[in-house]
This record gives sequence, structure tokens and C-alpha cells, in this order.
Amino acid sequence: MIKVGIVGGTGYTGVELLRLLACHPEVSLQVITSRAEAGLPVSDMYPNLRGHVDLNFSEPDIDALAQCDVVFFATPHTVAMATVPELLQRGVRVIDLSADFRVKDIALWERWYDVKHTCPELVTDAVYGLPEVNRAKIRDAQLIAVPGCYPTAVQLGFLPLLEAGVVSKDGLIADAKSGTSGAGRKAALGTLLTEASENMKAYAVAGHRHLPEISEGLNHIAGQTVDFTFVPHLTPMIRGIHATLYSTLNRDVDLQTLFEQRFADEPFVDVMPVGSHPETRSVRGANVCRIAVHRPQNGNTVVVLSVIDNLVKGASGQAIQNMNIMFGLNERLGINTIATLP
Amino acid sequence: MIKVGIVGGTGYTGVELLRLLACHPEVSLQVITSRAEAGLPVSDMYPNLRGHVDLNFSEPDIDALAQCDVVFFATPHTVAMATVPELLQRGVRVIDLSADFRVKDIALWERWYDVKHTCPELVTDAVYGLPEVNRAKIRDAQLIAVPGCYPTAVQLGFLPLLEAGVVSKDGLIADAKSGTSGAGRKAALGTLLTEASENMKAYAVAGHRHLPEISEGLNHIAGQTVDFTFVPHLTPMIRGIHATLYSTLNRDVDLQTLFEQRFADEPFVDVMPVGSHPETRSVRGANVCRIAVHRPQNGNTVVVLSVIDNLVKGASGQAIQNMNIMFGLNERLGINTIATLP
Amino acid sequence: MIKVGIVGGTGYTGVELLRLLACHPEVSLQVITSRAEAGLPVSDMYPNLRGHVDLNFSEPDIDALAQCDVVFFATPHTVAMATVPELLQRGVRVIDLSADFRVKDIALWERWYDVKHTCPELVTDAVYGLPEVNRAKIRDAQLIAVPGCYPTAVQLGFLPLLEAGVVSKDGLIADAKSGTSGAGRKAALGTLLTEASENMKAYAVAGHRHLPEISEGLNHIAGQTVDFTFVPHLTPMIRGIHATLYSTLNRDVDLQTLFEQRFADEPFVDVMPVGSHPETRSVRGANVCRIAVHRPQNGNTVVVLSVIDNLVKGASGQAIQNMNIMFGLNERLGINTIATLP
Amino acid sequence: MIKVGIVGGTGYTGVELLRLLACHPEVSLQVITSRAEAGLPVSDMYPNLRGHVDLNFSEPDIDALAQCDVVFFATPHTVAMATVPELLQRGVRVIDLSADFRVKDIALWERWYDVKHTCPELVTDAVYGLPEVNRAKIRDAQLIAVPGCYPTAVQLGFLPLLEAGVVSKDGLIADAKSGTSGAGRKAALGTLLTEASENMKAYAVAGHRHLPEISEGLNHIAGQTVDFTFVPHLTPMIRGIHATLYSTLNRDVDLQTLFEQRFADEPFVDVMPVGSHPETRSVRGANVCRIAVHRPQNGNTVVVLSVIDNLVKGASGQAIQNMNIMFGLNERLGINTIATLP
Repeated sequence: MIKVGIVGGTGYTGVELLRLLACHPEVSLQVITSRAEAGLPVSDMYPNLRGHVDLNFSEPDIDALAQCDVVFFATPHTVAMATVPELLQRGVRVIDLSADFRVKDIALWERWYDVKHTCPELVTDAVYGLPEVNRAKIRDAQLIAVPGCYPTAVQLGFLPLLEAGVVSKDGLIADAKSGTSGAGRKAALGTLLTEASENMKAYAVAGHRHLPEISEGLNHIAGQTVDFTFVPHLTPMIRGIHATLYSTLNRDVDLQTLFEQRFADEPFVDVMPVGSHPETRSVRGANVCRIAVHRPQNGNTVVVLSVIDNLVKGASGQAIQNMNIMFGLNERLGINTIATLP
Repeated sequence: MIKVGIVGGTGYTGVELLRLLACHPEVSLQVITSRAEAGLPVSDMYPNLRGHVDLNFSEPDIDALAQCDVVFFATPHTVAMATVPELLQRGVRVIDLSADFRVKDIALWERWYDVKHTCPELVTDAVYGLPEVNRAKIRDAQLIAVPGCYPTAVQLGFLPLLEAGVVSKDGLIADAKSGTSGAGRKAALGTLLTEASENMKAYAVAGHRHLPEISEGLNHIAGQTVDFTFVPHLTPMIRGIHATLYSTLNRDVDLQTLFEQRFADEPFVDVMPVGSHPETRSVRGANVCRIAVHRPQNGNTVVVLSVIDNLVKGASGQAIQNMNIMFGLNERLGINTIATLP
Repeated sequence: MIKVGIVGGTGYTGVELLRLLACHPEVSLQVITSRAEAGLPVSDMYPNLRGHVDLNFSEPDIDALAQCDVVFFATPHTVAMATVPELLQRGVRVIDLSADFRVKDIALWERWYDVKHTCPELVTDAVYGLPEVNRAKIRDAQLIAVPGCYPTAVQLGFLPLLEAGVVSKDGLIADAKSGTSGAGRKAALGTLLTEASENMKAYAVAGHRHLPEISEGLNHIAGQTVDFTFVPHLTPMIRGIHATLYSTLNRDVDLQTLFEQRFADEPFVDVMPVGSHPETRSVRGANVCRIAVHRPQNGNTVVVLSVIDNLVKGASGQAIQNMNIMFGLNERLGINTIATLP
Repeated sequence: MIKVGIVGGTGYTGVELLRLLACHPEVSLQVITSRAEAGLPVSDMYPNLRGHVDLNFSEPDIDALAQCDVVFFATPHTVAMATVPELLQRGVRVIDLSADFRVKDIALWERWYDVKHTCPELVTDAVYGLPEVNRAKIRDAQLIAVPGCYPTAVQLGFLPLLEAGVVSKDGLIADAKSGTSGAGRKAALGTLLTEASENMKAYAVAGHRHLPEISEGLNHIAGQTVDFTFVPHLTPMIRGIHATLYSTLNRDVDLQTLFEQRFADEPFVDVMPVGSHPETRSVRGANVCRIAVHRPQNGNTVVVLSVIDNLVKGASGQAIQNMNIMFGLNERLGINTIATLP
């Protein structure tokens, strides 16, 4: 059994980790910390866990965490980078769901997050936990930076096109639509039901914090600097990201075959049949990215539709997928659940 | 492995059976029939099942069904009663999710469903599949009538009060709120998103088909005829029933203890702490009924709050719970999943 | 033209006052105050008002308010009672949408709101602004306490029954379902879209602040003390209250005629035909209470269905209805809009 | 008073016409036809109209319609083209909300709608009723083809860019998100609340019927053939279209000024301040298109955000705007309502 700790378990990625790990046959949940809720039974905050998780939130305690085999950070940015160095030193492997170790360009990261990075050397060591790109490195990683939700949906959708070099490096566009759980579990005006339901809007068109992460990832995949525009939208639903990706073909190619071959061995990417329109609900609660590729009117514009559950393949599920790889388990273990539909 | 067949798998209770049975460790899915969709891969209709269920819908075929150990009917009423007799004769056990065998009073059933019952003698034999009331009978049953969704939420909520005889038999009220999946998967005006979202309404106040089933159940539990009013409401959500139950105390009693003791050994009824307000989302996708009991202002009115997922504990999950009991399995097997929250 | 001021215009009842008053032909909006947003154009906060309202929020200023003919308070409780006395002294009429002057029993009010009332003598003078009960008094009132949202829906539904004395004074039940705008426009966890959509729950079963207001109103209407149970529920929609009311008939009576005659001359109460199920969306944005009365299975339980838009007939629309009466205008002026459906 | 008839008033554009026309001070509603619902009071189908519209649906009758000054068609395609010729001959002006007269290229129209056009000569005469482009022609038109919902949002957003020729004619992209009322009021599986809420998906990526209409309009505005990709998405809300438009700048230009100047005199286009993100709810129920223009990271990609209510500026409100222009009325008359928010 893998001894697992969670730091910052009160948010949505935290409860999703708990939901999935509680049913994982090789995991023993040891500790879940929350400074604000220390002492509270986890299931008092999340009644869906009643009868399944009987831990209490505890004060963050490095010694308790150090007895785990792996610690997940489901915290706001800057929390992980304060604690991770010591955990690594004490031999604990770390899977960080926050943004602290995702962007290799430290200066860029510091500009977007408006804070000084306290352990830039660990950023270099950290493995970007997108298994479809970095599986081999993940196996031996001590520190995983789990990709953000938008970055997962966008990079997986562009992956076959950029790797094969069949689209122009200019004019890449991601028009992404997210449910409001992406904003996290915190009191806020803009994501009240009264404000966000029966409504659709773009936000952060001038620049979203996931932009540098996605750009760096796309550049890495393409092997060159690409020109990328990212427009996120807030959609009146709880879970789900639908990324609609646009690029310009630079040669004739069988797109369907390209995508099917690229993901043939991937346990959690499902290339749908020609002409499909994947729905976010078809991945709700499941660790899957479903993708369809279109070439409207047989023109030069490629349209990729990529859907994930932002809390699963876009966060906690992918984190556990990384853990399975790191510990040599079957990659599907504990996260092979079926989306609830309707 | 239990060989399982499903008749009528295209509706919401059908896909929910598939979602749960596909992960059940003791089940081998043999056949799923649909006259309308014969030949279609199940996962073409329900993409959430891609990679998990590779059956096709097939034409209804009594011989194929007769090779199963148990057959679930997820059909509109009158379908099961046409086929069940032969299946029983051929030694197949049947779990019927429709209304065909739920009401013992045949004349009453015929009046509400406006059709002649074709095998009334089987109604007598059928066991009403509410494990919290009929577990012993379920074990040996050949034919189970799975309770309706409203009847499950309402009966479980009133159960401790009526069994203990601590409330008046007059003036029982169930004000029930259901998501629109209770209306099934069929093209209809009233349950369009445009008609049913941002909206709340009562319906069928003059009389709902679940009324005779609930009344018969409550009478059975109380051991006498009770006076019962049932007002269902359509709520702008997909899944969930919230039953708010009113009755009048006829003696002083510790309600919390009464409820906790009654359900102490029940694997799928969760009595919440004093002062709780169970939420439907806390049981979404899970086979649980969560209950809280209140006595506002310490008056004589008892208020019971009872929530279920209408497609799980109110239908497919409860059907599988019955199957587990019938085949001597751990009652929780395959249906011990945790609700997805948020 | 009536010179109008608004105190506390940043909440939902505030913007709803603005939406309605901006189109009212006899109103000149003079001032709208908000300490927090002073200086901000109103339409920056509420873009729907762009091109219709070009006022800025201003610091609360008693002299500016004193130049109005009438001032609306759309503030949390305790704000109005601090300012109203001086405004009244200076001859300004006041319409208070908060709870400060609604409950005549000061001790009761202080217990529920947990604060000392600073001008109890004005509570005696204040007129409870439910036109269907108090129209004559409203005409000459200097100070109106606009009823709460739940109290409006519940009192109008019980009104004909209690006035006519045809139901028992015992066992009155209001099972009420509200959209989340009733919780106001403030950052909060419980009314996030992620927490409140796809969910149904009761709340405050032990006691809601509207309980003493409703009880006092029902007692007044009935001419005696009634026994009343109130269970509010949070419903996944923005606007609307659906009150389902239960009471016990104590004599045979033609309920439909009773209701139609009672409200025959009421401009904003619509008694629907026999067998109807009013929908909250049919009153969305409109100053109407639609009501249907049922007697299921011809038993002794009367079921009344009463729907309003909590922000219109349950708040701002009713406030303007009061203003129209106070200033001798056509009662429908400016608030005779049609609900937007779908 | 303008005598108005409506053909096909049972759909969502029909009820929206009724809601707006019932309050229009210069309109007298004469007749509203529906073959299916003849005899039924309009307010029985749409309870929001109770007390406001007391017409009954009537059988389609050319003589009754011929006595109107103007007739609106709110019908599926092919209905208008069967009746319009005679109405025009008899001197009645026609405003058609369907697709019958929108596309000048008859062969193209026939291919997309898969039906023979029965009066192609009238297509030539018909004026495309986008006031921001064709106001002068609308004044004298006998027959107006009201633009579709997507076409309105997309064309208004691209208008300043294409007219000024500041973007490339290649690579125009419209990523559009619509509420489900765009699918009309008809029983269907895909737009059930159970199927369409908590979900996001693209549809008709291979080609949507609004594509030829938009392309023709953009070509007309640009004065040349443009390369245009259109991807519509179904969004879990009732009303609203959010069009996110992408194009490539071909020169440096002050985009904000360009947009503000182009729409300075337009009563129903609102260019929002720099950096804005218009929300669909800010136009819900209102005849407004709100637009913001962005140039992310100061690159060459222009992002235009354009929102409308698909049933108002995208259909019935725009139809009445056309009527106001045709009859020499103030263009805002009867349609200057404020969006309901929240």
C-alpha cells in the first residue's frame, strides 16, 4: 500500500483526490491537512464522503507528511514551493497540482504570478506531468508538476498536429469554455449561481495565467516557438472544459488516422469517430480526454474539439495517473471510472 | 460470475444499470435488448461507456435472455408483464424496474395505469424490492418489483415514524422535488432545458402514478390505512429527489435516536446528525438515501428530509442492491461508489 | 414627476428597482447611494443599465435624500432604522425593503435579528406594505415596510382560506422553494454555482427569519393565532419562489370561487383555472403572484400553489406598487411588464 | 395604430413577438395564426401573457391576414414562401423571421435547405433586415428577411473590421455559443434539460445552415469573398449568443475608436469600454448587441466579443426594429426595454 498525504484538501481538487483515492486499491490515506479546518472530520465538509473517508483535517505537520510515500499538494500557488524542498530531502515524492513548478521559464512565471519563486532549481528538476508527452520521465520523477486544466485540454488537442508538423506555427487559437469549478471553492461574486448561470462570457482575454504554461508546452511539442491565442470563457455548468482549437493545415494529411495513431496506446485519450462532437458530460467524473478532429468544408482550417473534466483529467485524476506511473502500478488503477450520464 | 441480461437499455435507468454493472466484479453482461436500436453499439448512444462496454443492442430474444441468471427490465410499464412469465418458467430470476409488479391491489393498479394486468398472479408472488423493509423476502425472490424513485425516498423517510407508531395516521404529507431525469429519456416539450430550467413547478397534484404505490407501502409499514397527500415538483436539475415529509407527533420521542437505531445496520441509509440539511448532490451517482429529522420550534410537526439519486437508490442502484441480496453477495458490491461533488 | 432616492442600490433589489424605475413615466431618479461604490457609474456595475441609467453611486447624504419625495431603502437590516427617523421628520416618505419595520412585536424581532431596535415607535406607525391586505392604509402611509419575499408568496396563498375561516388554524404548512437571488448579491460559498446548481436542499428548518413575519401576518389575517410550520428550500435557479401551502379544510366550500372572488379586483394576483400548476418562470421579471388551489382526491387537505418573482412582487416591484398607491397613481404604472418566457 | 398579424405564433420567436408587441404603443394585434392550436387562447399556451394578450390562435386565413398593415412570419422555413407572394400582392408588408428570403444565392439556399424555392424572384426584392447595414433600404421595403441569430451576432462583430478593410480576408473564425432556445420549441432529445444542462458541445462543425447566410453577408460587407470558419456550440442556458470572433490585422489601427465610431449612431449596438467582457445576461430580453474588441498581447490577432439575446436582437426584437423603420416610427419604440439582471 502506498502511504499518501494531501496538503490543502478543502478545495475542489482536494475533495476529488479524496473521492478517487478512497477507492484506490493500493492507497492508504494517511493525512490530509488544512490549517483553517484542522480537527474537522473531512466528511463534515464533504458529506458525499460520509461512510467512505473517516479522516479529520489536521494541522500541516512536516513530520507527519514525511512518513508518506507521496504527498499531493492541492493548494493555491506559493504554498507548495515553501514545503516541497524539505519533503523531497526527506525522500518523499511530491505531486503538485498547483502552478508552482509548471513553467520552466522562471522569469515568465514570476511575471504572471507576481511573486518571487523560492526554489527555482526544483523547477528544473520537476517533471511536467502530462503522461501523453512525458511518461518515461514521470516514472522516475521525485517531483511532478501536474498540468493545469486548460493546458491539458489544449495541449492534447494540438499534440498530433504539432508533433507531425502539419499545421502552421502561426495563428494557433484555443477558444476554451470552462465550468465554474475551475475557479475553485472560494466565496466570490462572479461565480455565484445568480451571476454565472444563464450566462456566457469570455474572461481574461488580455492574458490568463495558463497562457505561459500552454505556450511553453506547445513550443516544446512543436520544437519551435508558435504563435498562440487563448480565449477562456466561463460556462454555466459545474464541471467540464471544452477546448475548440483552430489551426491552419500546411499540407494534406489524413487527420483522423493521425490522431488515432498518436493516441492508440493512450489509456486516457479517446479519439472519437469522424464527424463526432464530444460532449463534456461524456467525461464528467472520468479521467478521459475525448477528442474529435474536423476539417470544415475541406478547407485549410483544422478544428479540434477536446473535452475533459477539469477536476479529473484536468487535475486530480491526472495527478493519480502520475502516481500510478511513478509507483509502477497499472496506469488505470483507481481512475478507470465511467462518467455519470446523464 | 452472474450472467446478466437487460431488456430496454436505452433509457436513463438502462444506461445507469450499464454504468454500474460494467464495474461490478461478479457480473458478466450477456445481452442488452432494444427493438429500436438493435445493432447499434451501446457506446454509440452513450459515449461515457466507450472503452467500458462493447456490447451492441440486440433484438429482444427470449432464448438469449433465458440463458441469463437474472434479467433486469428497464422498460415502460406493460413490457415486463408480457415477457416475465416465460422467463420465470425457464428459471430466470427477474428484477423489474418498471411499475408492473409494484402494487398488490390489481384493481387499483389498473385504474391508475389504465390497462389490464396480464399476469396478476405474479403480482402476488413478486417481492417489493425495498431492502430496508423486505430484505429477507428478497433473498429467495424469483421476481423483484423495484420501488419507484419517489416511493423509495418517501417510504424510507416515514419508515421509523410509522413503524414506531409515533405520528398520527392522518395528515401525512410528502412534498417531493425531483430532477427531470425522472421523466425519462424521451423527446418532450415540458422537460426541454428551455422549459424546465430557471423554473419550478408542481405537477400532477390531482394524482401521480406513484401515489397508490406509496400509499400501499405506507399502509403496510404502519399496519393501518394512513391519510397521505403527495405533491411532486419538477426541479431544474438532472438528478436527485428531495422529499420533505410532514407528520404530526402523537407522543414525545427522541426522534434522532429513533432514526439512528432503525437504520443502524442499513448499508445504504445514512441518518445525518441533528440539525442537518441533506443535499441531493451529496448522493448524486451514489446508492444512498440520506435522511435528517427535525422538530421545528419543538412543536408537534415532524419534518423529515430525505434525499436520493432517483436513478441510483431510486432505480438502478437499488435494483443491483436487490441482485446482490438475491445472489448472496456482499450487499455493497459494485454499488458502493462515492457521490461526485461538486 | 416624483423625485426618488435609493439607499443601498448595489444589491439585487437595488438593481431591480433601477430597472423598473428607469422606465416608470412618473419617476425622476435623483440619487442612489452606496458607501462602498461611491463615484462608480451605476451602469459599470450593472451593464444591463448602460444607456438607460446614467447616475453614479454617491456617498449617503441625508440632505440629498431629503430633497426626494420618496426614498427606497434596499439595504441590509439595521441600516434603514438608523436613517429613516430623520427623513420622516423632514417630510420624506420612506419605502423600506429591509426587515427593519416589518414585525410589530419588537421583542420578537430583536430575538430573531439579534440586535436592539433603535426606533420601535416607528414600527407602530409603519404600514406593512402588502396591498392586498393594507391598500387603504398604504395610501396615507409615511413609512412602508415592504414584505419579504417568502412572506408575500405565503400570505397571499393562505389569505382567502384564513379570511374565510374555512381551514383549521392548526397544521398550516408552507413548503417554500426559492431561487438563490434571495440570498442577495454577496460573495458566499453556499450560493456558488458549483455548490447550488444541480442540487436541492432545505435550509433553516429550525427557524428562518421570515418565520415571525409570516406568523404575525397569518395571525393578523386569521384574527387568531395559527400553528404554522415553514420549511424553505434552496432551488437551483436565479429567480422565483414557489410556495406549496398545506392546510386542512374544516367545511365544504368551493375553493376556486373563493379564491377568484377574493382576488377579483387585485391587479397583481392571478388566480389560475382549476387544475393549474403555476410556474415560477411565468412571473419572472413581472410583478405578479399566480395562484392555483387544489383539493387532491377530494380529501380534506387543501394545497395552494403560489409563485412570485422574489425580486419583483417579492421586493422591488411590490415596493413600487406601494409607491404608486401612496402617490395616487395608477397602481400598475411602470410595473405592468410581461414575464420573459422562455 | 399599425394593424399587425402573426403567422405561426406558437414558437419562441412567436411568443417573444407577442411579449414585445403587446406593449408597443403603436401596434394593434389583429390576428395570430396556428393550424395546430386554432381556438386556443394564446395565454393558455404562454401563461406569462395572461392579462396582457387576450387573442386566440386562429386558423391561417389569408383574408384576415390581408387586412393587416404588416404580417410577421415566425414559422419554420418554406411556410413563408408559400403565402408571402399573395400578401404582398394585396399590399401587406411582410417581415419574415424564417430563412426563406435571407440568402440571395438561390442555388446555395436550395442546397443547404434541401428544398426548391418557390418564389426566387421575391428573394431579389427582399431586403436583408440588418438595420446597421441596410437601414435605408428597410424604410421602403415590402418584404424583410430578418437575419438569423448567429448571423446577427457575427456580422455586427466583424462589420467595422471588414468595412474598414483592416483585417485579412483569410482565416476569419466565428466560435459561437448559443443557448438552447435557438433550437426552437419542439420536442427533441438533444435539448432536454437532462441532455443539455451541465454540458457543453460543438455541433454542426461540418456545416450549419447559418453558414451560407453569414458568408454572403460578410462577403457583402467586405466587398470581396472572405474565408470563413463557423463553429457553433450548444451552451447550457436558455437565451443568449456569445460570438467570439478571430481575425488577423493587416495594419495598425485604433480598434476601439474604429468600433465606437462605426456604431456611434446605432441605437442597439453598444461598444463597451476597452478591456470589457460582455455577458449574455446583460442583453437578456433586450434588443441590444454588446461588443468588445481586444488585441491580446498586442499581437496580430483581433478578438471581438459580441453578445445578443438570440430571441430579441437575434429575432423578434430585430423584426420589430425593422417594423419601426418601415413605418417611420422612432426606432426604439416598444423595444427599448432593459435586460433583466440577475
